Amino acid sequence: MNTLAMRRLACFGLALVLAQGGCKTKSGHEPVHMDGKKTSCRPEAEPLSPSGEGMWPWTALEQMDERGLFARGLKLRLAEIWTPGEGGLARAAVGLRGCSASFVSEDGLLITNHHCAHRAIQRNSTPERNLLEQGFLARSRAEELDGHGLKVLVFQKHSDVTDRVLEGMAGDLSDLERIRHIEKREKEIVKECEAKPDTRCEVSRENDGLRYVLLEKLELRDVRLVAAPPESLGSYGGEVDNWRWPRHSMDFTLLRAYVDREGKPAEYGPDNVPYHPAEHFQVCADGISQDDLVMLLGTPYHTARYSTAFEVRQALEWYYPMRVSLFSEWIRILEATCQEIPESCIPTASRVRGLNNGLTNAEGMIAGLERANLVSRKDGEHKEWVDWVHADPKRSERWGKTHDELVRYLDERTKGRDRDFLTRYLLRGSQVLGFARTITKWASERRKPDEEREPGFQERDRENLLSDLKQAQRSLHITADKRTLVLFLTRLDTLPADERLQAIDEALRDPVTLETDFSPASVQRYVKTLYAGTTLGDEASREALFNSSFAELEASEDTMIQLALALKPALDAWNDRKKEREGGLARLRPPYLESLIEMRGARFYPDANASPRIAFATVTGYSPRDGVWHTPFTTLTGLADKATGEEPFDPPREVLDAIKARNFGTYADEKRDDVPVCFLSNSDTTGGNSGSPVLDGHGRLVGLNFDRVYENIAGDFGYNPELSRNVMVDVRVVLWYLEVILGAGHLLQEMHVSAAPPSGASH
Amino acid sequence: MNTLAMRRLACFGLALVLAQGGCKTKSGHEPVHMDGKKTSCRPEAEPLSPSGEGMWPWTALEQMDERGLFARGLKLRLAEIWTPGEGGLARAAVGLRGCSASFVSEDGLLITNHHCAHRAIQRNSTPERNLLEQGFLARSRAEELDGHGLKVLVFQKHSDVTDRVLEGMAGDLSDLERIRHIEKREKEIVKECEAKPDTRCEVSRENDGLRYVLLEKLELRDVRLVAAPPESLGSYGGEVDNWRWPRHSMDFTLLRAYVDREGKPAEYGPDNVPYHPAEHFQVCADGISQDDLVMLLGTPYHTARYSTAFEVRQALEWYYPMRVSLFSEWIRILEATCQEIPESCIPTASRVRGLNNGLTNAEGMIAGLERANLVSRKDGEHKEWVDWVHADPKRSERWGKTHDELVRYLDERTKGRDRDFLTRYLLRGSQVLGFARTITKWASERRKPDEEREPGFQERDRENLLSDLKQAQRSLHITADKRTLVLFLTRLDTLPADERLQAIDEALRDPVTLETDFSPASVQRYVKTLYAGTTLGDEASREALFNSSFAELEASEDTMIQLALALKPALDAWNDRKKEREGGLARLRPPYLESLIEMRGARFYPDANASPRIAFATVTGYSPRDGVWHTPFTTLTGLADKATGEEPFDPPREVLDAIKARNFGTYADEKRDDVPVCFLSNSDTTGGNSGSPVLDGHGRLVGLNFDRVYENIAGDFGYNPELSRNVMVDVRVVLWYLEVILGAGHLLQEMHVSAAPPSGASH
Repeated sequence: MNTLAMRRLACFGLALVLAQGGCKTKSGHEPVHMDGKKTSCRPEAEPLSPSGEGMWPWTALEQMDERGLFARGLKLRLAEIWTPGEGGLARAAVGLRGCSASFVSEDGLLITNHHCAHRAIQRNSTPERNLLEQGFLARSRAEELDGHGLKVLVFQKHSDVTDRVLEGMAGDLSDLERIRHIEKREKEIVKECEAKPDTRCEVSRENDGLRYVLLEKLELRDVRLVAAPPESLGSYGGEVDNWRWPRHSMDFTLLRAYVDREGKPAEYGPDNVPYHPAEHFQVCADGISQDDLVMLLGTPYHTARYSTAFEVRQALEWYYPMRVSLFSEWIRILEATCQEIPESCIPTASRVRGLNNGLTNAEGMIAGLERANLVSRKDGEHKEWVDWVHADPKRSERWGKTHDELVRYLDERTKGRDRDFLTRYLLRGSQVLGFARTITKWASERRKPDEEREPGFQERDRENLLSDLKQAQRSLHITADKRTLVLFLTRLDTLPADERLQAIDEALRDPVTLETDFSPASVQRYVKTLYAGTTLGDEASREALFNSSFAELEASEDTMIQLALALKPALDAWNDRKKEREGGLARLRPPYLESLIEMRGARFYPDANASPRIAFATVTGYSPRDGVWHTPFTTLTGLADKATGEEPFDPPREVLDAIKARNFGTYADEKRDDVPVCFLSNSDTTGGNSGSPVLDGHGRLVGLNFDRVYENIAGDFGYNPELSRNVMVDVRVVLWYLEVILGAGHLLQEMHVSAAPPSGASH
Repeated sequence: MNTLAMRRLACFGLALVLAQGGCKTKSGHEPVHMDGKKTSCRPEAEPLSPSGEGMWPWTALEQMDERGLFARGLKLRLAEIWTPGEGGLARAAVGLRGCSASFVSEDGLLITNHHCAHRAIQRNSTPERNLLEQGFLARSRAEELDGHGLKVLVFQKHSDVTDRVLEGMAGDLSDLERIRHIEKREKEIVKECEAKPDTRCEVSRENDGLRYVLLEKLELRDVRLVAAPPESLGSYGGEVDNWRWPRHSMDFTLLRAYVDREGKPAEYGPDNVPYHPAEHFQVCADGISQDDLVMLLGTPYHTARYSTAFEVRQALEWYYPMRVSLFSEWIRILEATCQEIPESCIPTASRVRGLNNGLTNAEGMIAGLERANLVSRKDGEHKEWVDWVHADPKRSERWGKTHDELVRYLDERTKGRDRDFLTRYLLRGSQVLGFARTITKWASERRKPDEEREPGFQERDRENLLSDLKQAQRSLHITADKRTLVLFLTRLDTLPADERLQAIDEALRDPVTLETDFSPASVQRYVKTLYAGTTLGDEASREALFNSSFAELEASEDTMIQLALALKPALDAWNDRKKEREGGLARLRPPYLESLIEMRGARFYPDANASPRIAFATVTGYSPRDGVWHTPFTTLTGLADKATGEEPFDPPREVLDAIKARNFGTYADEKRDDVPVCFLSNSDTTGGNSGSPVLDGHGRLVGLNFDRVYENIAGDFGYNPELSRNVMVDVRVVLWYLEVILGAGHLLQEMHVSAAPPSGASH
């Protein structure tokens, strides 16, 4: 029976006689539960739901406890979701540049979060027609707008290439040589893989090299904007509600993937036609209920579940506080610039949004790690591990030194961390300097044979690099960029003598006294000169320079190119340090992790690493604090109750009117007599899961993941059954908005959701 | 079988075979439910609990649905609670000056709220030994402290005296004559009643004269302080948490009533002995659980459930905004004074607390009335009433004009309301002016035969008046008093020409220009002179003047006495207006209410009027807003989680240590593995219910009422099954504090609660 037929059976309720079993089935072992104490304030009638822990690679589905999942409400076979070599429903879930998305029609209609398409919406906006303010609907396919760089990655295949990557690696390599060996192998594997037409490949490293997985993806490059609510709904509640519950954001956008007339991926073009995906999710207008099983598919970016206490302490005491300090100041500068120069607001909006998000994340991380007292819990776990290792001479011999070696290595490498932190953000802070670095590095790498170049700077990357350089124009504002560079220069001056960026010190050296001068006047003067002498603020100029040879760039009088070249030794050294660290961790982390896996004796899921994963979870609330329970659904009435008329609580008049008139179409939940807006589950998610399709037990789309709750930010370091909750848009409010507010019957029809009778007659 | 024996049986679970029945039993009709819409965010497993509506006079118990209450968990007969002419368990619930309290031992041990005993604790405090900061425990009866004016009223008997009050009232009386007639009858009835020794009597008017009830009480005047937590626990969370959930205040204090050696009520004296109450509540160390029935006994002060839309509008648009404005400024002045003059902090603490409480109440009232849209709901109800009245000629003839006449009357009397509002608070604002008014009015009234005097100024009131004048010393701070008077004088200057207080205008008339001068300098100068020329700031002086004749006062040179005399015409006129209004409402409200009772055709409970009541309710949470459920219990761990070390979240170290050590004695709730601190029910309560004993179905004490939630402040105008929730201290935290923190085993023994083995060994 093919998967589609099986799915049909499941849809008609005939497929499976499900084993009745306990709900407490655990999938996999438990790395670190951040808070094991009993919660006193769960409503008395609410049991703790089955854990949603685990971001499972699709290949892990084969080994999962299918009967346990049936008992929890799964209505399809795990093999229908994904069978290696065959595919499956999961293929409807796709990657979208740091986000997740999914196909919801045969004609390539995609759904993702509003905030994932934010840049595309912004790039289609002008002061006269601001789609962020007004929202957007294409009434026909002809009206669908260029996504300006939006790309969709359709996963095709995973293969374990660990042996091939590590094969022939000498034991006495330095860490830099080690990582170069690994990168070389990865590049070879990718090159071979990409010989297939229209295929993008990537070797995904799990836990610093415990396993290497080749991911094969189809890249669709013409992705268009189909429908989006205004930002006042898409991110209703703004930074006030971000990372919070109760939530009422309609964080969704509809896109469509196009291909050329031969069905091949192509750049945006008038002759392109809608893409027909192999799989798409059926949209389920009935939604989902409390205690129901949900599945999340997506590409979670990064977790650190197996960190040592040393790393958690460093995160808590150094890394997140550094982010809080830098991001707060950076936001202040961009906001002040927007106040002063209104034209800067649109280009800098995405950046401010991202920084605010990062700031709240960092603050929540600090609060969460402290609340869970994770450092001392990790210390406690380490003691257990030591006892376990030393209880057996074989273990002792094999793993006895792994932890201490890893920690000693990490400790040695804390030296210069402030410099590396600032260097990393410097190239993001001044976009123009970032352009100069990309262009000079691209020219520099091009002097080498393709296979020897730095990953990210091979011929296969040419198009992406150029596209990024061009698209960046829409988020560039020169004054904002200058002011951000001033911030970084000032911070660089706080570095100790042996960590200075020499090129910056030289640039700020007084020609008379020969002393470096980081006074505000001197920094301002320097930045003014720097921007006056560069053409990199201009899109065409960047495109032209992108094709220059390294020698041509060396001869260039462009001040920013010259600064990038002067910084080259420092940036290359920084790059080498990063690489070296990767090599060191590839040497030291895997053996330590092997011991953990052995000790815990249960199935293991690797840390999130932007590869496709699946999570199984339950729709359920949680207690943020004593005496309070966050219930798992919010409603349109709750959205209207929050409205103040002031940003970020200023929904459009017609939405408030429809709610007041209880014009709910057919989308009201019967129990609530209201349309659900957002809901909670205990699914294991992290950044990158934005836009993830949320499926019911039948594999039908019932929502879109878009956030976690504040109490779960520190969950990256350890899943907590009491507090790990993610926030999703309910598909019913999406359909309600499309039908009742936009009148987009054609899209409902395309998704095979029958539109209700005209408003007023319904319900 | 006598009631005690019956109760014993109930305690052993033998008493009653309870009818199994639906839980939806409603007691009485529903006057105004403020919000009938479905709540969307109650946890899905939580049904709406049986309504807790109704503050029932004890005499109503005879007619209540006993079987329905058995089905909800009542384990005793209603007749055991109260049987007219016989008494009952309810007699253990007593009145305590604006609060409620109850006996919990044979030896007169009483329990009430910390905030109800606040003044007594304050009056026993000195800067060197501040009992508000340190808390207090009498290790023996000899150490129990004088309550300084605390009085307990033990209810003995209720009798309906409506016929006697209204008998012989001519139909053509003016409103002032009408109220004088009523007052005369009330005074006669009270006098006759008080002929019994040690009896205090009161005629309680229900709903402006729908019914008059004679309440007979025994007054115990020697009430001592036995044990109290520090204010940092008693009002943990302070104004931040006041009127809020989740709550973690240990708002309790233990007192003891004393009598003379003959068992008669007496003033505080060394030879007095503990009082032996006829009834006391058994303390139930097992506490209570969610969904359990609870009963509240107490003296709720005032509700306005049967108000017209006109009155609700006036409350929303005028009265509460006036309070917000006045109280905010008044608090600011007292707080600034406390900052500047630390000695003023202790005397003004109770006042600041009261004002803050009133301010939050007023703000919550405005928010709640707006949220419930109560004005337009009242308008809608009125339309229904009009239809009902006009559907029947008899009704139309009898009641057709009642509503409009009432509203017309109320409307006419809005003229001058600002003046009357300020006059009322003026006498509370300047305590010294208040003393002068009491003394001059007392002298003035004493010129009349006792039975003709104003209620409150008869011989029976002498002792209370004098005691108030003396005790006030401890809450008096002259600078704070002066500054408050400045506030009032400044506000009085905003009154229009025809509403001015002439005596104040005269006092502030410039002797040269003959213009009134309310400039800051002039007001300051006047207030300085006023306080320089009075001895009323001195306790002995007040006592001496209290015995002066009116002529002696007229001849006095005391500036404040002279001001009170100059204000006498205005204050007497204000008094007459109040009386006249009472007369008008006694004429107009009862017939309108009779029609409402008839129309709604169900049992009726009168508005709260400080007479003893009982409420039947369920322990249950509520949803303050979409996506959030307030669960009905908080815990010690939650208390510790809130601690910041800064007021008002600065609990004593030993309390935090005991919680950290999980030294919970035997008081941890099994399900939570923690000691419950506060809990919620849907009981119908209002101001005056502070300190109310909360009983389980067996009539055992399980908690003390002390607050309502913010969403329920406007409940005074209409019970709301979704939002009407009251906040109680759990008796388990009281016992935990007494045993684990104070080591007060003698008190546990007295309450027949067995103390647990020494800490550490327990659990």
